[in-house]
Amino acid sequence: MDGPDNKGLIYHVTGVLFRHNLNIIRNDEYVSPDGQFFMRTEFEGELDKEALMTELQNTLPQGINLRINPKKKKNIVVFVTKEHHCLGELLIRYTFNELDADILAVVSNYNYLQPLVSKFGIPFHYISHELKTRDEHEDAILRTLSIYQPEYLVLAKYMRVLTPAFVKHYPNRIVNIHHSFLPAFIGASPYRQAHDRGVKIIGATAHFVNNDLDEGPIIAQNVKEVDHRHTAIDMATEGKDVEKIVLSQALKLVFNDRVFIHRNRTIIL
Amino acid sequence: MDGPDNKGLIYHVTGVLFRHNLNIIRNDEYVSPDGQFFMRTEFEGELDKEALMTELQNTLPQGINLRINPKKKKNIVVFVTKEHHCLGELLIRYTFNELDADILAVVSNYNYLQPLVSKFGIPFHYISHELKTRDEHEDAILRTLSIYQPEYLVLAKYMRVLTPAFVKHYPNRIVNIHHSFLPAFIGASPYRQAHDRGVKIIGATAHFVNNDLDEGPIIAQNVKEVDHRHTAIDMATEGKDVEKIVLSQALKLVFNDRVFIHRNRTIIL
Amino acid sequence: MDGPDNKGLIYHVTGVLFRHNLNIIRNDEYVSPDGQFFMRTEFEGELDKEALMTELQNTLPQGINLRINPKKKKNIVVFVTKEHHCLGELLIRYTFNELDADILAVVSNYNYLQPLVSKFGIPFHYISHELKTRDEHEDAILRTLSIYQPEYLVLAKYMRVLTPAFVKHYPNRIVNIHHSFLPAFIGASPYRQAHDRGVKIIGATAHFVNNDLDEGPIIAQNVKEVDHRHTAIDMATEGKDVEKIVLSQALKLVFNDRVFIHRNRTIIL
Amino acid sequence: MDGPDNKGLIYHVTGVLFRHNLNIIRNDEYVSPDGQFFMRTEFEGELDKEALMTELQNTLPQGINLRINPKKKKNIVVFVTKEHHCLGELLIRYTFNELDADILAVVSNYNYLQPLVSKFGIPFHYISHELKTRDEHEDAILRTLSIYQPEYLVLAKYMRVLTPAFVKHYPNRIVNIHHSFLPAFIGASPYRQAHDRGVKIIGATAHFVNNDLDEGPIIAQNVKEVDHRHTAIDMATEGKDVEKIVLSQALKLVFNDRVFIHRNRTIIL
Repeated sequence: MDGPDNKGLIYHVTGVLFRHNLNIIRNDEYVSPDGQFFMRTEFEGELDKEALMTELQNTLPQGINLRINPKKKKNIVVFVTKEHHCLGELLIRYTFNELDADILAVVSNYNYLQPLVSKFGIPFHYISHELKTRDEHEDAILRTLSIYQPEYLVLAKYMRVLTPAFVKHYPNRIVNIHHSFLPAFIGASPYRQAHDRGVKIIGATAHFVNNDLDEGPIIAQNVKEVDHRHTAIDMATEGKDVEKIVLSQALKLVFNDRVFIHRNRTIIL
Repeated sequence: MDGPDNKGLIYHVTGVLFRHNLNIIRNDEYVSPDGQFFMRTEFEGELDKEALMTELQNTLPQGINLRINPKKKKNIVVFVTKEHHCLGELLIRYTFNELDADILAVVSNYNYLQPLVSKFGIPFHYISHELKTRDEHEDAILRTLSIYQPEYLVLAKYMRVLTPAFVKHYPNRIVNIHHSFLPAFIGASPYRQAHDRGVKIIGATAHFVNNDLDEGPIIAQNVKEVDHRHTAIDMATEGKDVEKIVLSQALKLVFNDRVFIHRNRTIIL
Repeated sequence: MDGPDNKGLIYHVTGVLFRHNLNIIRNDEYVSPDGQFFMRTEFEGELDKEALMTELQNTLPQGINLRINPKKKKNIVVFVTKEHHCLGELLIRYTFNELDADILAVVSNYNYLQPLVSKFGIPFHYISHELKTRDEHEDAILRTLSIYQPEYLVLAKYMRVLTPAFVKHYPNRIVNIHHSFLPAFIGASPYRQAHDRGVKIIGATAHFVNNDLDEGPIIAQNVKEVDHRHTAIDMATEGKDVEKIVLSQALKLVFNDRVFIHRNRTIIL
Repeated sequence: MDGPDNKGLIYHVTGVLFRHNLNIIRNDEYVSPDGQFFMRTEFEGELDKEALMTELQNTLPQGINLRINPKKKKNIVVFVTKEHHCLGELLIRYTFNELDADILAVVSNYNYLQPLVSKFGIPFHYISHELKTRDEHEDAILRTLSIYQPEYLVLAKYMRVLTPAFVKHYPNRIVNIHHSFLPAFIGASPYRQAHDRGVKIIGATAHFVNNDLDEGPIIAQNVKEVDHRHTAIDMATEGKDVEKIVLSQALKLVFNDRVFIHRNRTIIL
């Protein structure tokens, strides 16, 4: 739940759960400096979801958003271009039931990674952007997605910018991995930029995609030390290990419904 | 508060606070796998502490421990031997009001650091252990402490083992910094041990002191990379930066009443 | 090269290379406090290996060990038990030519990971330890290895201790990943031990295997923060990401001939 | 030494040292992708510096820059504004002989830190910028510096931009600590910027000062995790620990003559 802060919010919610004989396993809340209240309550027990929702709505002040999510895997489609490291990580985790999600399909604007995906028995859709306008290409992708109705799109090194028209179909439901420690090195060739600036640490950022390139709410970041011996290519190679781990960590948080968005920031409870 | 887990604990506590018109700023709770409940609630408002405590006790099941602590600086005494880095850190932080504690005095079994302490106008008690039995030495220290009545003792590289008889005067109120990533390299000369083992990472551990040497509940740890070029002395030099930062981080948690102890583990809320 | 330190060693070696018209790309050396000299020289050019070796031997004092290795992939066999994360990492890297090694085969005492390995077209040898003595089991493995003649064995979460008799067939050529920050938590169930000790950081260690369990020279280590919410199982899950990355980093160093061993420590040049 | 790469450079230099009966303790070299050679050779023995320099110059190709530096402490002046944490760190290290430098004086545009500096018996020059033009202010500082003739200036949270005219008096001899992970958040209020962007990691950067604000060659960087609970002020508080440690690390490298500059990057040997 989230909404304007108010005295007694925790009390009211936990009271309803108590009367429904539900047991709270974990409860985390946060009040932002601008007065917004966020709470994630994990509970177990015999659940009448509709009755619970009604009583919560009646008890809480107006303006509070409530969501009751069962603990279950999310359905996702993964987007890639030519790099395999994030995709490989997701495929292995999925195969061994460690992803908290089912990969319904992989979409790519190249067919380069088809052999890898086919090893794991997952549909691979090669939708080239060549000879198509940007709109035609995105329309083709949207038609493919309509088959799968995924809850989330994961851009696992998908190297094309999505238009606002596309993104608005999946509001706060597209997760991207960017190969820099944002907001440093926005845009193309971040490792080249990082090398030329002579940084001593490189990083990666998993974030939601919104209309502005590389500007969406950050979910997770991590870094790795480099030195003058690293060429831009070495940095890219080293950075892959960071990218794939950061993406996996971010997805774990998202797929477990632990991420709230407030303005352009994430709150992780 | 902490005690056996039970349905409705959050509800009951937040209800009492709500009726007392107190506003919850932050609420964190944790239930351990063995069924113990821990909660730290930060609130503000007009407080009748006695009435609040009575009502909480009447509302909550038996066996729950309650503490209501005002937000205030702790009174501490710092123990040192010859190394200055942790002491210097604490003195600078204290001078600029960043320690969440008042340093009432410094106690040392050497007079080596007296010049540093005197710069900051803090009493320095040189209590040599020479020509004294261990009991006589600790008795002399306890007599000095009785002047100051500190709430916490901070062992900022105090290189003598305290006896159980001494420790029992300050249960869970003595914080030590150990110069290794515990439980690796317990005991003397951890950097020598670390060097001989050829580790690639060194660390430091801040922990409560109990009866067993280096075995008390861990509050904070941190690490730093080293390589084959580091001699044991180099490791000790590098390690000092980690030690002083880890000690400060641990003290910040302890002095803000954020650390619970359960069996031999800390729960930080 | 390595051997007792002596004035002029760098001069003599670089002189021979200069006269052979070879260009030094990278030169790193280290002298240990106990007077041992180590140098790794990367060079390029038209090479008469035999003549070069002869001249180097004639120029250098006795007692210096020289090795001239071409830059080429190593041949390896990977050992696993039931956990897939390190194996998956190695398979993906191998598939995309990022491992600096060819995986000739995978050996396991369970058949659990056969489906994963077969996706990548690599021979999988299921050699159960059941109904066999330890010697019989190791003999069976050695017979299998004799087919492949690997240069290195990689224990990618192989959960059985190898006997000294086995290890002596591959001196300093077996790399293991241990799921703790050695020397903390030697032996079985390190995450269980780490949880019970209440550590705030977990780690993983890649090391050469010698006769003493978990006591061989350390090649690489890395760590990850945990808190009181992590059960031993959570720690194991989080630890897997560290384990697989540390193992890959160590193998990259080993397969590029960058690791020297001196006493029980590695020197990485 | 540094200059255009050439076959035999290591050989020629080590040959001269060998004939002078000097013993190499440590030798590190690097060749940049654009063909520049860098070498730092640490040696000991009876030294005729002039003869050695002459012979090296005669042996080496033209265009190679040579410097022979004795191992000795550098003379520095520290600049501060109001924040104490980096200054406190430097003063404590200096007092206990851990800085590889002598602090000749502290210069500040406020008198706020005078009491701290005076505890350590170091001259404090309060040179207010008020009622002065930028040029007048810098002239006043330069006159003060002329008394001390420092080899390096350390900007330990000096919050005023120095003009190119000032900087050219100390080419590559001014070290600044910037309170962000450059190049993210260049300019003022980086923690405010970091908070608003919702980053999950903050950092600090020590760099040489050249004509462009925050654009000089980076010497050292480090980072620290933050989360949504950190306000901009919390980030600033947490960041101080990173800033002071990074600055100390960078100074250690600079004062031990380990830092080369090539284009806008540092090479650390």
